[in-house]
Amino acid sequence: MAQIKRIKMVIAYDGTNYLGWQATKMGFSVEESLKAVLEKILQHPVSIEAASRTDAGVHAIGQVAAFTTSKPALDLQQLQISLNRLLQGTIAIRRIEEAEESFHPTIHAKAKEYHYYLCLGKAQLPQNRLYSWHIPYLLDREAMERAAAHLLGKHDFSSFANVKKNESYQDPTREVLRIGFTDLIDGRLRIEIKGDCFLYKMVRNMVGTLVYVGRGKIQPEEIPEMIRSKNRKAAGVTAPACGLFLFGVYYGRKKTISPTLI
Amino acid sequence: MAQIKRIKMVIAYDGTNYLGWQATKMGFSVEESLKAVLEKILQHPVSIEAASRTDAGVHAIGQVAAFTTSKPALDLQQLQISLNRLLQGTIAIRRIEEAEESFHPTIHAKAKEYHYYLCLGKAQLPQNRLYSWHIPYLLDREAMERAAAHLLGKHDFSSFANVKKNESYQDPTREVLRIGFTDLIDGRLRIEIKGDCFLYKMVRNMVGTLVYVGRGKIQPEEIPEMIRSKNRKAAGVTAPACGLFLFGVYYGRKKTISPTLI
Repeated sequence: MAQIKRIKMVIAYDGTNYLGWQATKMGFSVEESLKAVLEKILQHPVSIEAASRTDAGVHAIGQVAAFTTSKPALDLQQLQISLNRLLQGTIAIRRIEEAEESFHPTIHAKAKEYHYYLCLGKAQLPQNRLYSWHIPYLLDREAMERAAAHLLGKHDFSSFANVKKNESYQDPTREVLRIGFTDLIDGRLRIEIKGDCFLYKMVRNMVGTLVYVGRGKIQPEEIPEMIRSKNRKAAGVTAPACGLFLFGVYYGRKKTISPTLI
Repeated sequence: MAQIKRIKMVIAYDGTNYLGWQATKMGFSVEESLKAVLEKILQHPVSIEAASRTDAGVHAIGQVAAFTTSKPALDLQQLQISLNRLLQGTIAIRRIEEAEESFHPTIHAKAKEYHYYLCLGKAQLPQNRLYSWHIPYLLDREAMERAAAHLLGKHDFSSFANVKKNESYQDPTREVLRIGFTDLIDGRLRIEIKGDCFLYKMVRNMVGTLVYVGRGKIQPEEIPEMIRSKNRKAAGVTAPACGLFLFGVYYGRKKTISPTLI
């Protein structure tokens, strides 16, 4: 009997032309594209689990996914090369390795980190147009940092969650572990948000709110009351999908997949 | 009689879907797209001169171009906003200002700087696939830097020039002023090449040669003889267009347009 192996992958993708990670009847998803290519190579049906069901248009540089195979004599290095060749650049397998048989990328995730790119200034560089949100206004960075400090910690984040059809949260309490701001050499601003888990569109709603703070439409001191209200209408706009990247997924001490260095 | 004004622009573009800067009968060029939009706004025929006729697929973040207009009461800030709206992101006017009537972006250029992006490692990040050259090999950086030192200065660069139909150089002597290497935080390597002027495909041929040096196919010490041979076949491969960006154009002291900071 062929040995069953659990394979773990770190995946990057350009979400521009995908309807998100998850398979849907509406159009192409990252999951379906990857599944089709994996099944072509492995010659058996494959089911893929991923740490995050990223939305339509959202990118990833450190998505973590896993699948099970019984293919004998599997050469993972060769599999990575074949996958990347067939995926033609819009999806890239950055790392592939054998995991414990019980490994589940969603259930075992301890934290996730998302990066959001803002392009400041009058004109956006054309090569960034699909990968950042152009903000042609001056932003008050100090106010944004004070607002971010209010978002840290364990809260009921209902004010920052969009309602998803046929889905509700048993407990909308989440913990935001870190919010960082990094100025990039190309003039963009990167907002890094790490949390134990996120509600639907929570990162984009937090970014939209931080941008409203930067523009003076919301005062940093209003954030605590905004959280307490548990009312989506109290917070800022949802930032567009194209600026968002799933940066990496953190696992427990024993099964750490360190996030990518990018 | 309306006053004649000379207008200078700093332009960025994503060259992916253009057949280069210059108007051609074969397909879309950056020049034609910009000319069409300018004429739509100004309501008179416009002729645009640019510092560099970038090739098909080559990008720019600091192309410099100029045109003449007799449009009365021209508001340049408003013109920039209108242009950027109509250009829809693939071309961006980063700066627009009045110049001396005699200003010519090609003739007055003292130096140009190009940046070439190499993506190293097994898998290329999907968002970089249209903006860098993926090199899945280890590169000997120290050898590349020694080779670059040999390329500096005034030489007959015929070995690094492709032959252009119906065109030949009266004097193929050019001066390379600087070659820099910068490691980017996303794992890419940027090669920065500044020179007084460049022969056809000279930057891409220099980059291709430096990559061959990095891979051990050419020794740094072979470069001087390669230059002396004045033979294109002596040098390395032509690097693909997608990794190349016109970074900026330098003008004389009085009419300096500083290159973009990116």
